[in-house]
Amino acid sequence: MSDFHELTRKLQKQNDSKIVLLVADGLGGLPIEAGGGTELETASTPNLDALAKDGTLGLSTPVLPGISPGSGPGHLGLFGYDPLQYQIGRGVLEALGIDFELTPNDVAIRGNFCTLDTEGNITDRRAGRIASEPAARLCEKLDQIEIPGVEVFVRHVKEYRLVIVFRGEGLGGSVNDTDPQRTGVPPLAPVGADGPSQKTAEICSRFLEQAGEVLQDDQPANLLTLRGIDMKPDVPPFQEVYGLRAGAIAVYPMYRGLARLVSMDILDAGQTLDQQMERLEAAWDDYDFFFVHFKYTDSTGEDGNFPEKVRRTEELDAAVPKITRLNPDCLIVTGDHSTPAKMKSHSWHPVPVLLSSDLARPDACQSFGETQCITGGLGQFPAKYLMGFALAHAGRLEKFGA
Amino acid sequence: MSDFHELTRKLQKQNDSKIVLLVADGLGGLPIEAGGGTELETASTPNLDALAKDGTLGLSTPVLPGISPGSGPGHLGLFGYDPLQYQIGRGVLEALGIDFELTPNDVAIRGNFCTLDTEGNITDRRAGRIASEPAARLCEKLDQIEIPGVEVFVRHVKEYRLVIVFRGEGLGGSVNDTDPQRTGVPPLAPVGADGPSQKTAEICSRFLEQAGEVLQDDQPANLLTLRGIDMKPDVPPFQEVYGLRAGAIAVYPMYRGLARLVSMDILDAGQTLDQQMERLEAAWDDYDFFFVHFKYTDSTGEDGNFPEKVRRTEELDAAVPKITRLNPDCLIVTGDHSTPAKMKSHSWHPVPVLLSSDLARPDACQSFGETQCITGGLGQFPAKYLMGFALAHAGRLEKFGA
Repeated sequence: MSDFHELTRKLQKQNDSKIVLLVADGLGGLPIEAGGGTELETASTPNLDALAKDGTLGLSTPVLPGISPGSGPGHLGLFGYDPLQYQIGRGVLEALGIDFELTPNDVAIRGNFCTLDTEGNITDRRAGRIASEPAARLCEKLDQIEIPGVEVFVRHVKEYRLVIVFRGEGLGGSVNDTDPQRTGVPPLAPVGADGPSQKTAEICSRFLEQAGEVLQDDQPANLLTLRGIDMKPDVPPFQEVYGLRAGAIAVYPMYRGLARLVSMDILDAGQTLDQQMERLEAAWDDYDFFFVHFKYTDSTGEDGNFPEKVRRTEELDAAVPKITRLNPDCLIVTGDHSTPAKMKSHSWHPVPVLLSSDLARPDACQSFGETQCITGGLGQFPAKYLMGFALAHAGRLEKFGA
Repeated sequence: MSDFHELTRKLQKQNDSKIVLLVADGLGGLPIEAGGGTELETASTPNLDALAKDGTLGLSTPVLPGISPGSGPGHLGLFGYDPLQYQIGRGVLEALGIDFELTPNDVAIRGNFCTLDTEGNITDRRAGRIASEPAARLCEKLDQIEIPGVEVFVRHVKEYRLVIVFRGEGLGGSVNDTDPQRTGVPPLAPVGADGPSQKTAEICSRFLEQAGEVLQDDQPANLLTLRGIDMKPDVPPFQEVYGLRAGAIAVYPMYRGLARLVSMDILDAGQTLDQQMERLEAAWDDYDFFFVHFKYTDSTGEDGNFPEKVRRTEELDAAVPKITRLNPDCLIVTGDHSTPAKMKSHSWHPVPVLLSSDLARPDACQSFGETQCITGGLGQFPAKYLMGFALAHAGRLEKFGA
C-alpha cells in the first residue's frame, strides 16, 4: 500500500480534469428471497444502467475477503488508504461523527454514562439509557473540568454516549477501556501501555475522579466509562498523495469527519440530495475531486427495509443526470461496503463499482447490479486501488518507468 | 515477489517441455468509437481464436490498477520479476536499447546534447534537435575522453540523444539529473547522494568539463546534459529462478536488452516476423523457453493508427501456426501493456492473455479479445505471476508441501 501512494506521489500529474466519487453507503445487497434480485437489481435505475452500458463495472473488496468493514475502514479504502494500515479508534470515529476537529495532539475517547451503586460497582453500563436532554446537560458540566497541562473537551453525542478529548503535548493513545463489559464490578482503572499513554492514563484517572464528584448526585448517571481511547491515525493528505484538490459533500457528520481525516475540504452539503447536487455544481470549478456521500442506502439496509432501500436507490439514480451534465472526466458510483436489508447490518459481500469515463474499456455489462458486476471489466479488486482507476481515467498519472 | 521466486527456485523441475511467450507489445486496446470493438476484437484472428477456444484466457495487470507501465516494467512483469522491486533507470534502459552490454560495475547515463550561450546558460535543451549524423560524429569525439580510474563509453542513440557509460569499481547510481528542465539557466551540478554516488558525481563533473572543451566550437551542440544516471538493477538470472534455458528472439534492441537483463540468451532475430519464426524453429532444441517479441502492435497504437494496429495484429495471427506446429507444451500470447490507438500511448488497461496448453482448463471463451478475456479462466492477475502459469502448464513445478 505504501507502494501505491509512493507511486501516486511520483506519477501524479496536473490537468483540468474532474473526478466524482459518488458513494451510496452500504450499496451492495442480497436478494431477500431465493431467485429474486438484490436491492440494486430490483431498483429501476435507468441512468446508472446507461452509464453501465458504456462504462466499466467491477466489484471491490473493502478490506479482505469475508471481512465486514465499519464506515471508517470502508471509506478509507475508497479514498485509497489501506484500512489495515490506517486504523481508526472508536473514540476518534465518535469525534469525527460530531464534526469535532481533532488535532495531532488530541486523544479522543468514547464515553458511556453508567450507574454505580454505593459500593462503586456498576449497576447499569448505559445509565438506564438516559435520554439525550439530561445527558447533554451533564456533558456541559463535565466540560468544565480542568486538568493542568491539558485542555479538556466533553461533547454529548446521543443518549448515554459522549466524546471526551484531551489536548496536550506528549500524550499517547494506548490505554485500555475502563468499561468492564459487565455489571456488579467497579470500572477498570486506566493503564497506559507506554510512556505517553501512561500520561494519558493519569489524565483519565484525574478526569474520572473529578467526574465522580461532578456527577455524584446525578441519577442514574453518576459516572462514565471510557472506551476506544485513541489518537487519530497519521494519514497523509489526499492532495499530497494524489495531487487533487478534493471537496467532500456529505450530509452526515461522520462522513465529513472521514473526509477531514484525509484532509479534504468540507463543503456545505445542506440536508438533501438536491442540495448536495447544487453544491456540487456551485463548487465545480474549485476542486478536482468530489466525494459525494448518500447515507440512505445504508440506513434502510440496517433497518432491514428492502423496499425502502430500493426506493432510496432509485432516488439516487434520479440525481445522476445532475452529475453527468457537468461532464466529469471520471465518475465512479459505488459503496463503502454492502448492507443487505436481509442481514440488517454491514456485510463482507463485495461492493458494486461503476466507472464511467471516455477512457473506460467497455465490457459486456448492460445494467448496474451485483450479478452484472461479476463480469465487469474492472474485475474484483481491493477497494484501496479504486483511486488508481480514478486517477488513470482522468489522465492524472504519468507512465511508470521508461 | 521474492516469495514467488523462492517457490520457483525450490519447486522447479527439469523435463523436455517447451514454453513460448509471444509478446505482442502494447496488445490491449480500446474501441475507437462507442459500441465498437478493440483493435484485437476488430482484427480477424482465426488462429488465435482457435487457441482461445481450447485454451484459457485472462487479463493481467502489469504493475498496479491504474498504473501505465513503460516497456521496462511491462517486460519485467511478464518475466516474473516484480516491477516495483526491480526498477530500471532511464540511462540503463537507453543503454539496453542500443544493445550495450552493461556490467555490474557500470553507471549508465542518458545524455542530451544542448546549446549554451556565452554566459553558460542553456538556450536549447535539445540542441535544435540536431540531426543524427552530426550528433554521431560528436559522440565519437566524446568517446575519446579519458578519466583516470574509469573506462568511458559514449554511444550515439538518435538525434540529440546519447548514452554515456562509466565503468569502474565503487561507483554509485544516485546522482541527480543535470538537466534543469528549462532554458535561461546553467545546467545543474551533479551531486551524489551517498559515498559511491559522490564518486560518480565527480566523474560526471570531470566528463562534462572535458566535454565542454571538446564541444566548444560545435554549434548548436556545445554541451550535453546528463539524465537518468543509474546502475542496472541486480536481477537474479532467469535460469536460476525458473530452471529454464531461455532464448530471446526480438528484432528491437530495447527488448533484447530487457531479456539480457534477466540473463536470457539473445538469438539472432533477423528483421522480420518470418525470420523470427525461422530462428524459433532452428533453435527449438537448444532452449526450454522462448521469448518472442513483436513490436508493431505497440508502435501502431502509439501512432494512433487503429486500422494499422488491426492489420499488424492479423499479421501476428498469421504467424501463429509456425509456432503451434512445433508443439510447444505451453504457448502464451499476451502484451507487456495496453497501447490503445485511441490514446496514442501506453495505458493502464489490463492486458489480454491467451494460454494454450494440453493442461489448460477450458473456459467459455470462443475468441481472443478483451471482453472475452474478462470471463477467462485465468481471471485478472498481476503480470508478475504469469511465469507461474507458464511453468505449471509445462509440468515444470513440483508440488508445494506434502
